[in-house]
Amino acid sequence: MEIDFDNIKVVGFDADDTLWVNETYFRNAELEFAKLLSPYETANKIDQELFKKEMDNLDLYGFGVKSFILSMVESALEISNGSVPQETIQSILNIGKDMINQPVVLLEGVEEVLHTLSQSYRLILATKGDLLDQERKLEKSGLTDYFHHIEVLSDKKEENYSKLLNHLDINPSEFLMIGNSLKSDILPLVNIKANAIHVPFHTTWAHEQVSEKETNGKHYKTVNNLSEILNFLNSIENH
Amino acid sequence: MEIDFDNIKVVGFDADDTLWVNETYFRNAELEFAKLLSPYETANKIDQELFKKEMDNLDLYGFGVKSFILSMVESALEISNGSVPQETIQSILNIGKDMINQPVVLLEGVEEVLHTLSQSYRLILATKGDLLDQERKLEKSGLTDYFHHIEVLSDKKEENYSKLLNHLDINPSEFLMIGNSLKSDILPLVNIKANAIHVPFHTTWAHEQVSEKETNGKHYKTVNNLSEILNFLNSIENH
Repeated sequence: MEIDFDNIKVVGFDADDTLWVNETYFRNAELEFAKLLSPYETANKIDQELFKKEMDNLDLYGFGVKSFILSMVESALEISNGSVPQETIQSILNIGKDMINQPVVLLEGVEEVLHTLSQSYRLILATKGDLLDQERKLEKSGLTDYFHHIEVLSDKKEENYSKLLNHLDINPSEFLMIGNSLKSDILPLVNIKANAIHVPFHTTWAHEQVSEKETNGKHYKTVNNLSEILNFLNSIENH
Repeated sequence: MEIDFDNIKVVGFDADDTLWVNETYFRNAELEFAKLLSPYETANKIDQELFKKEMDNLDLYGFGVKSFILSMVESALEISNGSVPQETIQSILNIGKDMINQPVVLLEGVEEVLHTLSQSYRLILATKGDLLDQERKLEKSGLTDYFHHIEVLSDKKEENYSKLLNHLDINPSEFLMIGNSLKSDILPLVNIKANAIHVPFHTTWAHEQVSEKETNGKHYKTVNNLSEILNFLNSIENH
């Protein structure tokens, strides 16, 4: 199934790991966390316990860096059977604050693609992170002017995107989503008959991983980096 | 200055302490927190230190319950000079989870007012809390169907509301905001020439308090409870 670019009105961009590096900072934080708790458990077990804690807290805390910090604190208390030193709790809070203060590193082709697409479409940022955190990254990135606004979704499932389209007053066929996560940015869109382009990032959070079975028979485009999207546009113009 | 209800297109409602009780839960959490730390300081000093910590972290963490929990943990470490028992940290995390799980208690007249206004205007929920938290409360409240969507603002200052109006594609004169906080729901709207109705709640967070000087000469309506808004509408119809 081809994407009918003439029919698109709004293009939604995922933010983390689509426009800029993010998962790398989470992975580094997990490494630091495992080092802090190395007196109690193997790095592998610590990783597993932290992920389990994040999943247990997901309904309550949702996504984003503050949820991650809270899960690290709780996980540290449990892994150490309540014996983790107070300074380690402080160190965990500091890991979190450092994550929030990380520089924004743009991925390949971002500026060029946003510049081109913003001339024909209304662009929005669609994220399930904290609004404040995403606004800050957008500000730091220098990309603010390309986007009409930021949409925060509490999750990125079919019903969340359906609500978004209703809110934007457009049909699914008029929406194109671009992102790195098959689970969050691609499959739910395909399922509600909207358009989607997958731009894989080299690292994927375990929660976002999908099996081959789930993508079987689903129609979406995949590009190696954002710039390749411009080829689709060129081929339309030369049509 | 009268509000021209015929010209209004969208009515924004603040959520916490406008539609349902919220500040009361924060106050109760602060009392529990002070009790947990009573071996180290007076309740008054603990209150002051926690508020100071919340303000210090505001730029980094933003508003909402997760930010509050993180500030409690950090504050506990500082107030106790790093000697707070690990079980107390766990208790603080539990206070936070209990807050998230509190029942939603509607304020007087809410359902009636939403029912009436939703027949003539598009209603939105405009909040600076966590989206997931507010979605959950809206769901529990049974009020979901009255609202077109939830708008999350990272803060409620003039520029945030200007962005919101731009995003909604309406003029300031076509927007009416209803809320309990002069600082967040009323004054910024008045300053950008939108409409605002103040519905005071009996308890106001220190961060939201404004001096009389700030409200001097500002034009907005005040009602004692939400139902009184319906009187304005009746007087138009009988006009």
